[in-house]
Amino acid sequence: MARKTDKRREDLRIKLLDLAEATIIKGGLPALKARTLATEAGCSVGAIYTVFGDLNDIVLATNGRTFQRLGRDVARAVQARPNASPADQLVIMGTAYLEFAADNTRAWRTLFDLEMSTQMNVPKWYLAELARLFGYIAGPLRQIYPDKPDRDIDLMTRALFSSVHGMVLLGLEQRISAIPRSDMENMIEMVLRGMARP
Amino acid sequence: MARKTDKRREDLRIKLLDLAEATIIKGGLPALKARTLATEAGCSVGAIYTVFGDLNDIVLATNGRTFQRLGRDVARAVQARPNASPADQLVIMGTAYLEFAADNTRAWRTLFDLEMSTQMNVPKWYLAELARLFGYIAGPLRQIYPDKPDRDIDLMTRALFSSVHGMVLLGLEQRISAIPRSDMENMIEMVLRGMARP
Repeated sequence: MARKTDKRREDLRIKLLDLAEATIIKGGLPALKARTLATEAGCSVGAIYTVFGDLNDIVLATNGRTFQRLGRDVARAVQARPNASPADQLVIMGTAYLEFAADNTRAWRTLFDLEMSTQMNVPKWYLAELARLFGYIAGPLRQIYPDKPDRDIDLMTRALFSSVHGMVLLGLEQRISAIPRSDMENMIEMVLRGMARP
Repeated sequence: MARKTDKRREDLRIKLLDLAEATIIKGGLPALKARTLATEAGCSVGAIYTVFGDLNDIVLATNGRTFQRLGRDVARAVQARPNASPADQLVIMGTAYLEFAADNTRAWRTLFDLEMSTQMNVPKWYLAELARLFGYIAGPLRQIYPDKPDRDIDLMTRALFSSVHGMVLLGLEQRISAIPRSDMENMIEMVLRGMARP
């Protein structure tokens, strides 16, 4: 009996997650409402909270999937170019980040729209996903700067990720002015190559 | 008579702008409501729309003031160090941007929270304010790269601004993890000095 209930709960969990992910991909975070989600899943609003703590938990779980897809795309882009120099690898990853954000704008924005404070209990799997993404950047940096202490490599990794994120964010939002994709790629390359000269 | 009406309209305009600015500084964009603004100004909701097209226009006008304050802070920081090298100047400006954003977080966030599309008629004074800010960055870059075409300097200016913005944004939101201010300053300096080596 208990096993049957567990199976049913897990099925509902996956179903809600699939629906929430589709909603966020289509309409972003503002489109996600518990009532609509319940209707689509054919369950009561209360049933949602038997498998997720609150709506934020569902968003966090879909963000986990988005992070995985992003990490996979970034890793694949680098693996496709096995002879790339460390500096080239950084540029390849930066460009892959831009491409992912442009192709998955709403899901990508939701990664950063979710209220997340350090007071909040961020799940371990989420931090692991983030650490994996940052590991991809730290690898080539470590090759470029073999003598730098780990702490500097960590800060540099974070600086590069944040810089590329800023260029992609303001560029896709056309915040300063409209800008063609090729110019955004050039900007990313400028900054990354600037940092990749020891 | 006409002059008296003009004066009254202008007074209401300034009053609404002062109130909207105070609201945004205190509570950010979500705190700004036409009804509350009208109550505070002692006028009808309709009267607001005799001096502003819509609420977005008021936000744009307060953003103009924020931009002016930001530009003034950045310019002052550089002027205070007349012997700074071009690379130093970039670092001084990046640090001033961080400081302004940390001290005026809600008003600064509102600069980027306002929906603004290239389809929208962005006022000339707004674009002029932006151009002035970008001019501060382009100056030292031009000294560092005297032979680069203007187009490259423009892209580099935009790349540097967007990079610093990304580091400040993710840093202040503690998006990746909590980070001390000194580390944020180090990150900004790393990226800017990386770009400031011809």
